Amino acid sequence: MQIKPLYDRIVLSPEKNKSQTESGLMLPEAVQEKSQIAKVVAVGEGGTFDGKESKIQVKIGDRVLYNRFAGTEIKLDGEEFIIIRQTDILAII
Amino acid sequence: MQIKPLYDRIVLSPEKNKSQTESGLMLPEAVQEKSQIAKVVAVGEGGTFDGKESKIQVKIGDRVLYNRFAGTEIKLDGEEFIIIRQTDILAII
Amino acid sequence: MQIKPLYDRIVLSPEKNKSQTESGLMLPEAVQEKSQIAKVVAVGEGGTFDGKESKIQVKIGDRVLYNRFAGTEIKLDGEEFIIIRQTDILAII
Amino acid sequence: MQIKPLYDRIVLSPEKNKSQTESGLMLPEAVQEKSQIAKVVAVGEGGTFDGKESKIQVKIGDRVLYNRFAGTEIKLDGEEFIIIRQTDILAII
Amino acid sequence: MQIKPLYDRIVLSPEKNKSQTESGLMLPEAVQEKSQIAKVVAVGEGGTFDGKESKIQVKIGDRVLYNRFAGTEIKLDGEEFIIIRQTDILAII
Amino acid sequence: MQIKPLYDRIVLSPEKNKSQTESGLMLPEAVQEKSQIAKVVAVGEGGTFDGKESKIQVKIGDRVLYNRFAGTEIKLDGEEFIIIRQTDILAII
Amino acid sequence: MQIKPLYDRIVLSPEKNKSQTESGLMLPEAVQEKSQIAKVVAVGEGGTFDGKESKIQVKIGDRVLYNRFAGTEIKLDGEEFIIIRQTDILAII
Repeated sequence: MQIKPLYDRIVLSPEKNKSQTESGLMLPEAVQEKSQIAKVVAVGEGGTFDGKESKIQVKIGDRVLYNRFAGTEIKLDGEEFIIIRQTDILAII
Repeated sequence: MQIKPLYDRIVLSPEKNKSQTESGLMLPEAVQEKSQIAKVVAVGEGGTFDGKESKIQVKIGDRVLYNRFAGTEIKLDGEEFIIIRQTDILAII
Repeated sequence: MQIKPLYDRIVLSPEKNKSQTESGLMLPEAVQEKSQIAKVVAVGEGGTFDGKESKIQVKIGDRVLYNRFAGTEIKLDGEEFIIIRQTDILAII
Repeated sequence: MQIKPLYDRIVLSPEKNKSQTESGLMLPEAVQEKSQIAKVVAVGEGGTFDGKESKIQVKIGDRVLYNRFAGTEIKLDGEEFIIIRQTDILAII
Repeated sequence: MQIKPLYDRIVLSPEKNKSQTESGLMLPEAVQEKSQIAKVVAVGEGGTFDGKESKIQVKIGDRVLYNRFAGTEIKLDGEEFIIIRQTDILAII
Repeated sequence: MQIKPLYDRIVLSPEKNKSQTESGLMLPEAVQEKSQIAKVVAVGEGGTFDGKESKIQVKIGDRVLYNRFAGTEIKLDGEEFIIIRQTDILAII
Repeated sequence: MQIKPLYDRIVLSPEKNKSQTESGLMLPEAVQEKSQIAKVVAVGEGGTFDGKESKIQVKIGDRVLYNRFAGTEIKLDGEEFIIIRQTDILAII
């Protein structure tokens, strides 16, 4: 992918309208309102920005649960992506 | 379990509707309103996120007392779990 | 005791309804309203949580003066305890 | 270019009125309202300012996606530029 | 003295109703309203608490000028003391 | 010059009523309202103040773009100067 | 002088009612309202207090420009002094 996010930012491809994942993880409605599942398509390299250091724990291809109120939407070749801080990713699932 | 929480996040399986534990720990009503007992089912690896470092002191299988107003509920194979920051866990009991 | 508090948390057994201690320390009313005396029954191991490091200066058996508006009450085998941050303990007395 | 920004500041030459980039990245309207594409024309050297350290991850010639509400506009030889903190740059595209 | 304050806390024995000290230091009324003179009777050992390190610069016997709105009053064998943070002590006089 | 600013402070001699600089940099009106050009006449040595470290990146003689709402005006031998924090200087121009 | 300020505190002897200094520095009225000139009569030794480190850059005898809204007034042998944080001193003049 031609996007290289800076610092601890991660680019996600969200899985929309899925209330149950292949691995069996099901998000209750209350969770769907504030969390969402996505695949990681690009990762920042971490580093030191404005006095803060970050190390990256996700990699391309990981499926993650993230805070849906965080991040910025972008569109690439008609597909939608989210640029998000790693701190807003809850878990690799 | 197929969930790997990031940073200092811990996945808990809450013990509901128990006012007394096997080891004899009893939560008074005032405590039940704000704390709860759970078993640890997955732990983050700590690390450095956005300028902050965390080291993990709980392990899978620990029974913990946690702040019930913290964390995010998820459902997996019909069972409910909580993803919580280690800072919201008070003690291993 | 079967409770192991995390990070800088300390478990206290409060001495209630005592306005004077054996060692002669007497708490004036204004102090009793905001401070209290207790015995330490369990201590966290300190460590690094969310970017902050703590080292523990109290040990089991110490009698301490603490901020009574801090901490969480729990009950074990009918006895009441307080889980408190070490930063809310003023002194070993 | 004769501008040398201090610390983590970056000088950008914004690409205006483009809703689609050469590499195929298209910004949806909602994004255009808060993000914008620009070319990097000068970079600070990072360093330590007022207790904070920064290391620079962009270089002259990079095309970046940035937060359009951040930064200060200047005009040089009739051309407009933006001076922005590196923390307000989302990604190299 | 049987009190051992934690971290950067200092136990003071305040000199009340003195507007002039033996060494000739005189506190104007405006100062008396917010500062006061006391003798140091016990000192914490400093250390690292919740991410912060402190080193102690006062010792038992020092006479100090402190911020009278800071600290907690206690009574020991009928005598009044103040437990205060070292950061609220202005100077050794 | 007989002024030695402390820490990261810089003394500037502002260039007033100039909307275009010799090097061709022109400040649009919107910028003139919040930024201004000046020559550096004295620099602090950086160092560590109250937990923060600063290293200095400007030198005497540099012409800089700075945030005009920052700093303190002083007058020396009839000439006006600004004492400003290095963090409020955007770029060397 | 018999005062030893703690940490980064500095004791100043203010020069009152002077709008022009011997070295030719003149404070405009707007500055006089918020800054003032004084001589340094005692300096703290810096150190580490509550997680912050300070190193001292002024010495006894220095004449300084300081923020007049900062600090605490004290009186010694009939003479008035100011105890101020080094961070509120702008420059040695």
